[in-house]
Amino acid sequence: MKASQFFIATLKEAPADAEVISHRLMMRAGMIKRLGAGIYNYMPMGLRVIRKVEAIIRQEMNRAGAIELLMPVVQPAELWQETGRFEKMGPELLRVKDRHERDFVIQPTSEEVITDIARQELRSYKQLPKNFYHIQTKFRDERRPRFGVMRGREFTMKDAYSFDRDKEGAARSYDAMFKAYCAIFDRFGLQYRAVAADTGAIGGDLSHEFQVIADTGEDAIVYCPSSDYAANIELAEAVALGAERAPASQPLVRTPTPGRSTCEEVADLLGLPLDRTVKSLVLATDGTNEAGNTKEVTIWLLLLRGDHSLNEVKAGKVDGLKNGFRFATHSEIVDHFGTPPGYLGPIGTRKPVKVVADRTVARMSDFVCGANERDAHYTGVNWGRDLPEPEVVADLRNVVAGDPSPDGKGTLAIQRGIEVGHVFYLGTKYSRAMQANFLDETGKPQPMEMGCYGIGVTRILGAAIEQNHDDRGIIWPAAMAPFEVVICALGYERSAEVRASSERLLEALSGLGVDTILDDRGERPGAMFADWELIGVPLRVVVSERGLKAGTVEIQGRRDTEATVVALEAAVSAIQERRGG
Amino acid sequence: MKASQFFIATLKEAPADAEVISHRLMMRAGMIKRLGAGIYNYMPMGLRVIRKVEAIIRQEMNRAGAIELLMPVVQPAELWQETGRFEKMGPELLRVKDRHERDFVIQPTSEEVITDIARQELRSYKQLPKNFYHIQTKFRDERRPRFGVMRGREFTMKDAYSFDRDKEGAARSYDAMFKAYCAIFDRFGLQYRAVAADTGAIGGDLSHEFQVIADTGEDAIVYCPSSDYAANIELAEAVALGAERAPASQPLVRTPTPGRSTCEEVADLLGLPLDRTVKSLVLATDGTNEAGNTKEVTIWLLLLRGDHSLNEVKAGKVDGLKNGFRFATHSEIVDHFGTPPGYLGPIGTRKPVKVVADRTVARMSDFVCGANERDAHYTGVNWGRDLPEPEVVADLRNVVAGDPSPDGKGTLAIQRGIEVGHVFYLGTKYSRAMQANFLDETGKPQPMEMGCYGIGVTRILGAAIEQNHDDRGIIWPAAMAPFEVVICALGYERSAEVRASSERLLEALSGLGVDTILDDRGERPGAMFADWELIGVPLRVVVSERGLKAGTVEIQGRRDTEATVVALEAAVSAIQERRGG
Repeated sequence: MKASQFFIATLKEAPADAEVISHRLMMRAGMIKRLGAGIYNYMPMGLRVIRKVEAIIRQEMNRAGAIELLMPVVQPAELWQETGRFEKMGPELLRVKDRHERDFVIQPTSEEVITDIARQELRSYKQLPKNFYHIQTKFRDERRPRFGVMRGREFTMKDAYSFDRDKEGAARSYDAMFKAYCAIFDRFGLQYRAVAADTGAIGGDLSHEFQVIADTGEDAIVYCPSSDYAANIELAEAVALGAERAPASQPLVRTPTPGRSTCEEVADLLGLPLDRTVKSLVLATDGTNEAGNTKEVTIWLLLLRGDHSLNEVKAGKVDGLKNGFRFATHSEIVDHFGTPPGYLGPIGTRKPVKVVADRTVARMSDFVCGANERDAHYTGVNWGRDLPEPEVVADLRNVVAGDPSPDGKGTLAIQRGIEVGHVFYLGTKYSRAMQANFLDETGKPQPMEMGCYGIGVTRILGAAIEQNHDDRGIIWPAAMAPFEVVICALGYERSAEVRASSERLLEALSGLGVDTILDDRGERPGAMFADWELIGVPLRVVVSERGLKAGTVEIQGRRDTEATVVALEAAVSAIQERRGG
Repeated sequence: MKASQFFIATLKEAPADAEVISHRLMMRAGMIKRLGAGIYNYMPMGLRVIRKVEAIIRQEMNRAGAIELLMPVVQPAELWQETGRFEKMGPELLRVKDRHERDFVIQPTSEEVITDIARQELRSYKQLPKNFYHIQTKFRDERRPRFGVMRGREFTMKDAYSFDRDKEGAARSYDAMFKAYCAIFDRFGLQYRAVAADTGAIGGDLSHEFQVIADTGEDAIVYCPSSDYAANIELAEAVALGAERAPASQPLVRTPTPGRSTCEEVADLLGLPLDRTVKSLVLATDGTNEAGNTKEVTIWLLLLRGDHSLNEVKAGKVDGLKNGFRFATHSEIVDHFGTPPGYLGPIGTRKPVKVVADRTVARMSDFVCGANERDAHYTGVNWGRDLPEPEVVADLRNVVAGDPSPDGKGTLAIQRGIEVGHVFYLGTKYSRAMQANFLDETGKPQPMEMGCYGIGVTRILGAAIEQNHDDRGIIWPAAMAPFEVVICALGYERSAEVRASSERLLEALSGLGVDTILDDRGERPGAMFADWELIGVPLRVVVSERGLKAGTVEIQGRRDTEATVVALEAAVSAIQERRGG
């Protein structure tokens, strides 16, 4: 490919709305072009990367036995009504009416359609297992689309769906997909972690996110450097800190803490470490009567150590909070505690509240908490003596770096990641809702056990760049790069020698299957190099009159600090060697 | 590929709503699966065909210098408002509002978006010409979707758009696309014609449809077997039939024709050939005043020979009818002619009407036409004697087989076709509406000259099948077939020899790049053969215990009446020979 026959459109400046580095670099490198909020044109340079990502995904999915098909973008609402998602999903589901006023959705995923196919096509246990996937345009009407392709509204996703006879089969399908995902992300050449993730209402442990490691990632990944433990922070288990509870050694004292409404301020005032304080978080659940109206509000007091933070996913697993909770209102708090937030605690509430203590709090003694009175805290608080033992003890907090690993094999570390893939055991949620049954060996209908497996194709571009860039631009891993090699022909227009040598090199490399572009635009070296460093092509070959006089060209990897001079006739083999092939 | 790892789902019967053969066969072969009216899942077998079609299109588009990008499915209405199409297009344009009540469209084509890209990216004459294309999901909310993928609502289209400095450049771009389309359809292995098509308001002769020849096609294609003339019937020029007008030889006679209101009935009654009669068609145009209200209705009388039919596209090119016309109402006809339809003619109308005679009618003498009186016609009608020479003579009729070719090189034939591609010179329609200007050598802004070039990717499947099928099923051209070769392994499960030989054959063919599937499902020969004949794989190899005992396999092309026995060790070379490679 010659640059003159391609479309290269780099920009000096990224638009002001590009907040993150990958968005800025993709805009500047001419990979994407904004059409509307969260909607992008994939320009020729960007599309090449997408196609390479898609090809790798397709190869590994096929290798794992998944079968490709293609489901429509515009899907009839009827199927989405069968599972209730047409009503339940929020405005991120783009709904549309056709000329006959019939309801449709622009697909955000395809569980309903694939389950509809499965219930028609997969009738017998003999046809199972099956795994179908497609790579298709998706739309999610994000409230606040941002970060370019990282949180767009229209995007490309690979979504696969497995159908099995039983849970054991589903686990095998899940495992095959887990392995395929590892193969895919290995081939991309990205640093990633597969981390255990929350399975929500379905339960079990079959949910993993594939996170590309990047300091700018939105997700916190918890892992144990000395074992294979890795989990999303939502799921990562926080063990109780400290040994068994120490006996009480201090008296309970009501201490004035004027204007000190946070644990930090109180600890500071009292000259105590923050981990001696306990913070109070007040939640509410709304009971409903038979008519569906709110009947009775229950107030919950969650206690965490002052330096810990609440994990809402974990709170949602506490009995009584499983069906949803909210933070209590100011007036509910005043009504139950007799004081506004800032001075709350478990001792002497005005009305009864349900107390849930984090595991670590349950082990504390001689701690500090609010006195349910403005400008006052208690010190020397002890369970069993000053207040009853906690009714409920649960894992309520986010882990922090240095916590013991729940597998007992070391201490936890935390890094940031960008979720680009997710494997998930669905169970029979969709197959039951849509009567997707097969006949087992005895002729009895059974709901199919399902799994779903997504990869955000376009998002991977952003994630790869967040992980691989420098101040000159993108540094693509070779497998994803729009071109593997760029031949920068200096003086292409005026030198017949440069022209001939660079074209021969292009031909030789292309003939070997090396995806190469020859920059024949006649740009000045500085501008030309800057373009390709911005675009992030892994390997650059400079062909110049001066070099050719000495019979040499220069080869430089995108991460190299300087070029290597090689003989012209050794250029192809040197490049092949650099590619590792 | 082994069949057990793929998804094969043939049906004995097509659903009742499948009207045409391609739709029936695609459903029965398990290529597509209906999701809603005009919306289909592309099942694994059908998707393989689509991917092959796409790959050929992509290769030839790239070879022709076009550059691939990808524009979104969901497009902001603002751009469509700039060209007025958001308002002008009918309900086939699917409109949708996002969560913020902003208007969007689901793209039916992408002129607006590509012109928006061009006006931002192509600023200088130095950047022209450029041709961008994408292969993307389209949606047109057809009033009556039917014929499977032939007239669906959601479909895949390749649409390309060229940008040039001037008309000459645009003609070169057009020509390059015309040639690329020929290369594409040649490679598909389909019988097709590139036919001149109407350019509508833009004028000029730069519009061609690529029509796949099929008796069941919706379009009539006019061509000259002894020259390269070919045109859509809408455009094909009808020359005047007969030599110069013969002198009048009969008197004008008012003849009773009770109850005979059609030319056929009148000719029959009078014992005259149909081509001696002239039929009257009454059109109306509505003048508007400055306020845009209908002011003055003009009634037009179009005269065609009794055996000819009106071509409305041609009528629309007559001065006075160019801004649109309609058929006159019953009361308008009675008001102007004094009689209801069936007995109308140009002599003695009650009120003045504009007479337009078809070229052939203008040459007729002693003809028959209505007498503007119920149950009466005139015979022996002659121009100049019985009525004034026609005010306007124009080409108004559809050509019929046997007409002289307008290039003077023979007579015309007509065949049916299915439009699968269209190349079209757009001029500056979109670039002017959207201010897509470039700076010429003098620094002056000029609107870009555009062309657009579409291929209906999914529609090609239907067209190919309409052209290539028999009572057993589809007969794919090799380049489009889901698999080129099927190895039918008879007794795969019980015979180790069959298993070993068929697997070796699969490996050998796959290694040579022959897209092969091994049917290892253990079906009975009859059912297995019927499946693959229905699916339409071009070449079948039968591996059986009996054959292997004799050291042979059977090879049979999909169109062959019987199989050829070849030695097992010669099978690969025999298959290669049959493939022509």
